[in-house]
Amino acid sequence: MSPKGEKRTVEQNLRSRRSEVEDVRSRIRSGEYDGPTADLARGHVQTNLVILPEDYAFDFLKFCVRNPKPCPVLEVTDAGSPEPPVMAPGADLRTDVPKYRVYEEGRLVDEPTDTEAYWRDDLVSFLIGCSFTFERALLDAGLRLAHVDQGRNVPMYVTGRECVPSGPFAGPMVVSMRPYLPEEIPLAVAISGRFPTMHGAPVHVGDPDSLGVKDIDYPEFGEPVEIAENQVPVFWACGVTPQAVAMGARPPLMITHSPGHMFVTDRFDTEYAA
Amino acid sequence: MSPKGEKRTVEQNLRSRRSEVEDVRSRIRSGEYDGPTADLARGHVQTNLVILPEDYAFDFLKFCVRNPKPCPVLEVTDAGSPEPPVMAPGADLRTDVPKYRVYEEGRLVDEPTDTEAYWRDDLVSFLIGCSFTFERALLDAGLRLAHVDQGRNVPMYVTGRECVPSGPFAGPMVVSMRPYLPEEIPLAVAISGRFPTMHGAPVHVGDPDSLGVKDIDYPEFGEPVEIAENQVPVFWACGVTPQAVAMGARPPLMITHSPGHMFVTDRFDTEYAA
Repeated sequence: MSPKGEKRTVEQNLRSRRSEVEDVRSRIRSGEYDGPTADLARGHVQTNLVILPEDYAFDFLKFCVRNPKPCPVLEVTDAGSPEPPVMAPGADLRTDVPKYRVYEEGRLVDEPTDTEAYWRDDLVSFLIGCSFTFERALLDAGLRLAHVDQGRNVPMYVTGRECVPSGPFAGPMVVSMRPYLPEEIPLAVAISGRFPTMHGAPVHVGDPDSLGVKDIDYPEFGEPVEIAENQVPVFWACGVTPQAVAMGARPPLMITHSPGHMFVTDRFDTEYAA
Repeated sequence: MSPKGEKRTVEQNLRSRRSEVEDVRSRIRSGEYDGPTADLARGHVQTNLVILPEDYAFDFLKFCVRNPKPCPVLEVTDAGSPEPPVMAPGADLRTDVPKYRVYEEGRLVDEPTDTEAYWRDDLVSFLIGCSFTFERALLDAGLRLAHVDQGRNVPMYVTGRECVPSGPFAGPMVVSMRPYLPEEIPLAVAISGRFPTMHGAPVHVGDPDSLGVKDIDYPEFGEPVEIAENQVPVFWACGVTPQAVAMGARPPLMITHSPGHMFVTDRFDTEYAA
């Protein structure tokens, strides 16, 4: 019930929640906020961002379709258009991410808070599902996130599993790791599995060696977390995979979000639950 | 246990089931079988097929990503390659579908059993999820399929819901309809919803008018089925959508499967359950 006692329709409720997310993006766009996004606009889908020249776009999209666990594509823009019409109509991908990374020939050259200086008419943007959606669902189900409890970034590892290549895009799958007790594992699998376009269920439970992880204490990305004696490492396909692979293709220009600084969309996590 | 009493590994079991599906494709390839595929290789994913010139491939793939309910893309080939490396390594999409349709400028010109006469080095093939997967799951859950009981093709309707366009690809969503009793609807929704890459949960339950269906008795594709007094029409996004939209773009050449004559893949339905 609104203050005046009128009933609000579902559509009105959704509109009101959408305007909250527009406020968040507007604060980011103006430069008022340039921090990590994990705690913003709870309930809204956040995504990884990869921006590439049109010449690379089809091969990259084909790579993602061939490797949907690490690379679940939620949206692709028209070349030159910074607006994602499905996930956030009216948003501007040139400015609405708090922090970007700019790569030239695969080399990091800048970490700006907007990309207008780099924008070109042939750029295509890809929004890729992110683990925040299933992490929130795990927390809601009463499970812990060890990296959050320990105040660290989630540890990520390069595996021995090669992705199915596409044109210049090739390389191993990268995974994120969260440790759980044996009795927690079925719930962690079931809950994350409900979100197939946000990396879905884990790809591997236990034994890091047989996944090709080099050293569980030295993740290639993020930070190590402590695994208790009675915990098992559980590995999920990770959105760093498409970024690492795109970097390896050494395109003349690639723009991504900066780790943890995601794109906040209009869509709700629950819309993506299977 | 095998006849000799040895234990077979999961991998050996999978290999043995895969060789069954290779036999099916081999009989289709040789021309020995050119009928509908619904009852073949039970448990294996079957897909819709759309083949387009490379010039149209990125816009079409972008269309599919923007409209994942009617157009869940499971695989995209390299230009000129007839092999789908993820869904059926070693298969040949030029010959392994029992019956094809060939369109020139959006007009049906041929319905051959192989496409070698039309093949070009710039053709890209798209495998798109098909309702057979969730229909089998509905049957396994004890639900009926009215069109099967009545010996008809599933009725399909053009709706008033416009897809999100991409380049020359634009048009309304097409839906398939299966009638259920009110008490069956929650199960039908839950079961089909487990297969988000095979059209997933319905898009609409009841009232055809508000979906923009013109006349429930006259489906635009397939055949009408009788809806009992106490049944409700339930509508699922349909894989005819991308075909209809691609036809509307009038590309110089487009090849698809013929209705009901799908591509049988190596992959298992259960691999795609969320």
